[in-house]
Amino acid sequence: MNDYVLGVDIGGTNAVYGLVEIDGTLLYEASVRTVDYPNPQDLIDTIKQDIYNQFDFHGLVGIGIGAPNGNFYTGSIEFAPNLIWKGRIPLAKMFSESFNCPAVLTNDANAAAMGEALYGNAKDLKNFVTITLGTGLGSGIFVDGEIVYGHDGFAGEFGHIRVVNHGRSCGCGRQGCLETYVSSSGVVRSIKELESINKRTSQLLRIENPSARDVFDFANQGDLFAAEIVDFTAKTLGNALADFACFSSPKAYILFGGIAQNGEKFPVEVKKYMEEAILHIYKNKIEIRISTLHDKNAAVLGAASLVWKELELQNG
Amino acid sequence: MNDYVLGVDIGGTNAVYGLVEIDGTLLYEASVRTVDYPNPQDLIDTIKQDIYNQFDFHGLVGIGIGAPNGNFYTGSIEFAPNLIWKGRIPLAKMFSESFNCPAVLTNDANAAAMGEALYGNAKDLKNFVTITLGTGLGSGIFVDGEIVYGHDGFAGEFGHIRVVNHGRSCGCGRQGCLETYVSSSGVVRSIKELESINKRTSQLLRIENPSARDVFDFANQGDLFAAEIVDFTAKTLGNALADFACFSSPKAYILFGGIAQNGEKFPVEVKKYMEEAILHIYKNKIEIRISTLHDKNAAVLGAASLVWKELELQNG
Repeated sequence: MNDYVLGVDIGGTNAVYGLVEIDGTLLYEASVRTVDYPNPQDLIDTIKQDIYNQFDFHGLVGIGIGAPNGNFYTGSIEFAPNLIWKGRIPLAKMFSESFNCPAVLTNDANAAAMGEALYGNAKDLKNFVTITLGTGLGSGIFVDGEIVYGHDGFAGEFGHIRVVNHGRSCGCGRQGCLETYVSSSGVVRSIKELESINKRTSQLLRIENPSARDVFDFANQGDLFAAEIVDFTAKTLGNALADFACFSSPKAYILFGGIAQNGEKFPVEVKKYMEEAILHIYKNKIEIRISTLHDKNAAVLGAASLVWKELELQNG
Repeated sequence: MNDYVLGVDIGGTNAVYGLVEIDGTLLYEASVRTVDYPNPQDLIDTIKQDIYNQFDFHGLVGIGIGAPNGNFYTGSIEFAPNLIWKGRIPLAKMFSESFNCPAVLTNDANAAAMGEALYGNAKDLKNFVTITLGTGLGSGIFVDGEIVYGHDGFAGEFGHIRVVNHGRSCGCGRQGCLETYVSSSGVVRSIKELESINKRTSQLLRIENPSARDVFDFANQGDLFAAEIVDFTAKTLGNALADFACFSSPKAYILFGGIAQNGEKFPVEVKKYMEEAILHIYKNKIEIRISTLHDKNAAVLGAASLVWKELELQNG
């Protein structure tokens, strides 16, 4: 058996983990419910026990972890609003001590970007940005082949760039953040907050607690109000991506997550609105791609790849 | 005499050039009027003749050029709206052939950022952004000690990130771009476009063609409307810098140019508004600094430093 690393993707609800070889082969994958572990050490112990039941640890060369508000520089999760673990959690250190091997941590969006770069739809790119559309909107920025961490490890928070003056209230305490419009929760808010003459007749008002998926499904079935929400979401994202080009001038944006993977129409619409709004020097240069890792776990692969990269650096 | 490089800062009105040693010592500096040279080759010949009259060329190891819309990758100025030279001008190649030595080109804001990094107020920083406030608003982004060029050489156009929905018309054909508010021309527009009960009594309406400098001067003298314009400008910039932190999480923004250097109050106001508007994870982390190169020519020094950097890379 070849060497492998443990990749862990910590989410608000579930933690997915897998054993990954250097070429991205997933030897094993499983998940546990994060919310069942108020003490993070218990979650680590459960993962360890599960793997130990099936594999020896001789081949384990390191652990890569992606987590919300995970900081690459400190190895800690820092004040993640969507986790049950509050404050600062030195997760890299805890994993490292439990498994007795090196561990690195980064935020989940960066881990997904890393997965995309190594095994997904950005293998040919050195300058790109991943946009992860989940409950919120995450982003991972690659510049010249490297993830942008910023001076403190917190770069790449595109979800909290304000795109509407005095817009929707955000969980961060501010108003008009992109993720209050473009995310699964943002799409659901649009059902209530958008006005339209087609609203009264929409199926969305006839079901209980419609989800973002319902919006996209009804839109595909010809529901006019649902289609307007999808269009509004694509337009808001396209406009934002047009402006974000002014930062790193990426070759592509790679969309990932539920909303992005609802058929081929959405990315086409995003691209259309982006091109309409973009500064002339960037026109017709930037691709909108869809992640090819949506079946696989991009963040597990990406978190794992962090380790391979660190080992490569250490070995020159 | 030590080795030196020729640094050239091409502006819409003037082109400033200087001979610079590796430690930033300026051996000689002069300028010509860009607008007097419809043919760029004539401008190159004039610079060459001027230098040749006073120096031999034995010590000249290269030429670094900063110019609006200058592209590091292609070595060309590409469609610069503020220059009399239209279309694509392969300026690096033209300088290189005229002087028979290597030449590199980048945009003027990147050149200024490079100058700041090597000789100015960013010597201690690896992650920072320079904001150049002239007729427009330019920016140069450093991530982990390197300038961000993007896939095509056009990264760092913060002046064209739209900050007001359906805002002021911009020369780029779009609306609400930051530089229509925060630049010397933006400040002048604010005289006409802002409304205030103090407007009627303001000195600004009593002089012909008031400049941005007049606005700042009158504000310092207690003119209430002028003070409101300064406040509005600081607030707009502070708000924008708060959001831009979400890209690269810089350790500092370094303000450069006329508006920024109108006393100590403006950067303090910018910082105040930035802190009020910034995402919690960035709070009280980012400094607002003022360039220390405003007397010197940051872009000449920066353009020159490009050459030293290239030579260093070539020599390993």
